[in-house]
Amino acid sequence: MKIVKSIKEMQKISTALKRKGKIIGFVPTMGYLHQGHLSLIKLAKKKSDVVVVSIFVNPLQFGPKEDFKRYPRDLKRDTSLARQAGCNILFVPSQRQMYPERYTSYVNVEKLSDTLEGKFRTGHFKGVATVVAKLFNIVQPDLAFFGQKDAQQVVIIQKMVQDLNFNLKIIVGSTIRDPSGLALSSRNSYLAEDERKTASVLFQSLLKAKSIIEQGERNSSKVIHEMEKMILSQPKTIIDYIGITDSQTLEPLEKISGEVLITMAVYVGSTRLIDNLKIKVK
Amino acid sequence: MKIVKSIKEMQKISTALKRKGKIIGFVPTMGYLHQGHLSLIKLAKKKSDVVVVSIFVNPLQFGPKEDFKRYPRDLKRDTSLARQAGCNILFVPSQRQMYPERYTSYVNVEKLSDTLEGKFRTGHFKGVATVVAKLFNIVQPDLAFFGQKDAQQVVIIQKMVQDLNFNLKIIVGSTIRDPSGLALSSRNSYLAEDERKTASVLFQSLLKAKSIIEQGERNSSKVIHEMEKMILSQPKTIIDYIGITDSQTLEPLEKISGEVLITMAVYVGSTRLIDNLKIKVK
Repeated sequence: MKIVKSIKEMQKISTALKRKGKIIGFVPTMGYLHQGHLSLIKLAKKKSDVVVVSIFVNPLQFGPKEDFKRYPRDLKRDTSLARQAGCNILFVPSQRQMYPERYTSYVNVEKLSDTLEGKFRTGHFKGVATVVAKLFNIVQPDLAFFGQKDAQQVVIIQKMVQDLNFNLKIIVGSTIRDPSGLALSSRNSYLAEDERKTASVLFQSLLKAKSIIEQGERNSSKVIHEMEKMILSQPKTIIDYIGITDSQTLEPLEKISGEVLITMAVYVGSTRLIDNLKIKVK
Repeated sequence: MKIVKSIKEMQKISTALKRKGKIIGFVPTMGYLHQGHLSLIKLAKKKSDVVVVSIFVNPLQFGPKEDFKRYPRDLKRDTSLARQAGCNILFVPSQRQMYPERYTSYVNVEKLSDTLEGKFRTGHFKGVATVVAKLFNIVQPDLAFFGQKDAQQVVIIQKMVQDLNFNLKIIVGSTIRDPSGLALSSRNSYLAEDERKTASVLFQSLLKAKSIIEQGERNSSKVIHEMEKMILSQPKTIIDYIGITDSQTLEPLEKISGEVLITMAVYVGSTRLIDNLKIKVK
């Protein structure tokens, strides 16, 4: 596995690979790799000739009061995990290279970025779209891999790729969960032991919603109410939002029909967690 | 010369060309080609293996009260002119393909887009940056050619390429002028005969500014005042702005020093014209 720190060098390597007709699979991450990331790297390995993994904690997608500084980092561990999972090139650009002085160009997927997570994290998805556009231009992948755990991010990146005509295909990997159902996330490292137990209520509430809907409930408010009751019965939980929306437009649905996305953000103690489930209803 | 109307087909052709290691030179235009465009196509011909010219009147860069509908179009003439100048592939996408329903992704080069032209044409440069980003992703050029006549556009596109890490080089062609000094523009077709004579005052005022500065004047206000006097002495002229700015940051300069850009927009009758001159001062 090669470690590349320079944008120019990464771009040169990718250009040369493309000239040789190699399929580049790309897994962008913020590091502190867990099984969710590793499953994406393994998936990329199956579908590509060369797997590029980037590690970059993107300041642009953190709000001023968010956890940019304390976000967990462990490049040594990440390097070893990425190598084992089949990564060929680990791309680790510096913040100064990515956002030099007087940086001023941004990509924004309007509307989709202002709802759900976007309502609570102003500017977050503009930061995500911008860094992903930059990484796509640097790595020039044929395939790019994202986890379903960040459901709204997936919708936004797919829309950006379609609208701005990026010459690549997005492949979405399933959410990986621990045995309790908790979706893997680098931020789970913030959780105390008791909080970790509590945190499984996010997925439990999603399963509950699924079961209620399968039993015939089509009223979103009623489903959300049941989820809220379940989550708030646990200690130290605060709900930012629970949304039941169209899975593509992310528009709220009063009546559940078609392919719907149930998304949520919940604080457990001081740790903000997100989770989601896609459900198809006839 | 091949005419390509489909985005997917253009992308496929470009991908295949790049695999063969061909240098793609790209000249994006809004059509109604004049010698300014043709000089860019000829320059592209010299520097590239394959020359792609796009013709697309981009609705996104026109304000609601601007001339999108009446903007001159003549695809038959353009086709013949492009072929003669050495174009290999003429890319002519439809508006529906470029901006399908629910289109919502935009590129914006902040700050640089809000000054000078951007102050008078809100959203113009966001429209320009977005369409150029799309065209870059479709055509995947190694070299892209722009005319110095649209000075602020050049600065913004160069900044976008740098910030978003587009894997290509921008090449700027000189402004082409008619014998009176009037910068060639598709919009010159709006001018009546007497207005066309008047319109040469834009370049004359730029030459006047140059001469005053060469004689030692360093006070921007004084230079602008002389230019205004000269322009307003002509019939049917209205000045939108005259700017003396740093040529890269586009920040206004009170005292003229370094590489400065003098830019202007002036109405002659109902036709809005722009022009500019770069001057180096010790």
